[in-house]
Amino acid sequence: MEGQLQGDERLDDLLAEGLKIIQSPSVFSFSLDAVLLAKFAYVPIRKGSIVDLCAGNGAIPLFLSARSHADITAVELQPRLADMADRSVRLNGLEGRIRIVGGDVKGIAAVLGYEKHDTVTCNPPYFPAHELSDRNMLEEVAIARHELKLTLDEAVANAASLLKQGGKAAFVHRPGRLLDLVTAMRANRLEPKRIRFVYPKQGREANTLLIEGTKDGRPDLKILPPLYVYEENGEYTPEVKEMLYGQDA
Amino acid sequence: MEGQLQGDERLDDLLAEGLKIIQSPSVFSFSLDAVLLAKFAYVPIRKGSIVDLCAGNGAIPLFLSARSHADITAVELQPRLADMADRSVRLNGLEGRIRIVGGDVKGIAAVLGYEKHDTVTCNPPYFPAHELSDRNMLEEVAIARHELKLTLDEAVANAASLLKQGGKAAFVHRPGRLLDLVTAMRANRLEPKRIRFVYPKQGREANTLLIEGTKDGRPDLKILPPLYVYEENGEYTPEVKEMLYGQDA
Repeated sequence: MEGQLQGDERLDDLLAEGLKIIQSPSVFSFSLDAVLLAKFAYVPIRKGSIVDLCAGNGAIPLFLSARSHADITAVELQPRLADMADRSVRLNGLEGRIRIVGGDVKGIAAVLGYEKHDTVTCNPPYFPAHELSDRNMLEEVAIARHELKLTLDEAVANAASLLKQGGKAAFVHRPGRLLDLVTAMRANRLEPKRIRFVYPKQGREANTLLIEGTKDGRPDLKILPPLYVYEENGEYTPEVKEMLYGQDA
Repeated sequence: MEGQLQGDERLDDLLAEGLKIIQSPSVFSFSLDAVLLAKFAYVPIRKGSIVDLCAGNGAIPLFLSARSHADITAVELQPRLADMADRSVRLNGLEGRIRIVGGDVKGIAAVLGYEKHDTVTCNPPYFPAHELSDRNMLEEVAIARHELKLTLDEAVANAASLLKQGGKAAFVHRPGRLLDLVTAMRANRLEPKRIRFVYPKQGREANTLLIEGTKDGRPDLKILPPLYVYEENGEYTPEVKEMLYGQDA
């Protein structure tokens, strides 16, 4: 496997899933937010079709493959990241279940089919383009973090275009974008149904937002119990430990 | 004081504030939500003007009088409730600081002044008119609980019309109406800035929503730490105990 690594890439374990993933500290490593989204989203269990948009190095499709037997398609614009994701899929022997598609999220339904998928997940770039201050930031990193190639509205609209009626789209983002997100969702026939706020620890403001909407769903929003990431002593909470390390955490 | 009570009215203590309030089990008793909103809202401390809409029997203005020296005006449509509120204000000797206005929230700025107040609080009717199934419900109760005389949109629009630029409106409602609420707020120049979700206990979905917006504020939404009402054993949490019973709880 080592022979498949390039540059500063390394092979990390997805312990809870018993899988491996290729990461690069300089180019792209998945974040806790990807783990949270992959655990939060409703997925069809036995069959069906799941699409992950803004897939990066493929962490979310790998996580989802442990929860669902549906076909999983992952879309990533950046060739370097799509290649990392593709190699990770192969070294886990999952090429029969996960397909990596290199290409733009904008217009993706023309490639993958309009209104025919059950679930879409998306961990989009979080930061507005104008907040990109570090001109020396590696292009791969800048594109993954900032809305340079894909705005939030575009991410939501394209997610919606893929979903069949009753299909679900799940996003992770910053709480400060909640209103933009729900506005974009409703404008694209995605009715927000479940929100979970993620707090770094007790007593702090939320720093992450998980939200799921149903295509053409009726209004009925639930605010799920809060998710805390760290205990007071700085350790992960039991809930996060189980997500990261599995039942034996 | 007992001579001022009518029918099944009784005199209850607002322990944390050292005040008294006239309640009627059949007509109107304030809820925990009123307490939560009165503690959540930002208020000017030394001077200024606060308006409470849908004041019921005046619980929120009484609570606010313990937090602020601003002038407080409370608006209540129903004469029976406005009268209870007015008597409570007088028996606490607060008639110099709290004014009860009997009348409709719709068009209230024509009475109290457009864009001249610092804070508006509002605990509006929670339930859509069409969900009123109990035809035997007392009219006072039905009007206080259901959107028969005031819709959510009207509550938000009238709150906004009272506020000066930079003024704050705080609402309490059910989480299921979050999207309607933020949509109405933004449509009326109230930018949502702080949200706090209230959970009956750990592990449950939120059942109450506190939200505050700033008139013509810039987008910058914070999700505050969750508020839990009950411990596992059914007792109030320390935070709620302090709200209800004060520092010595």
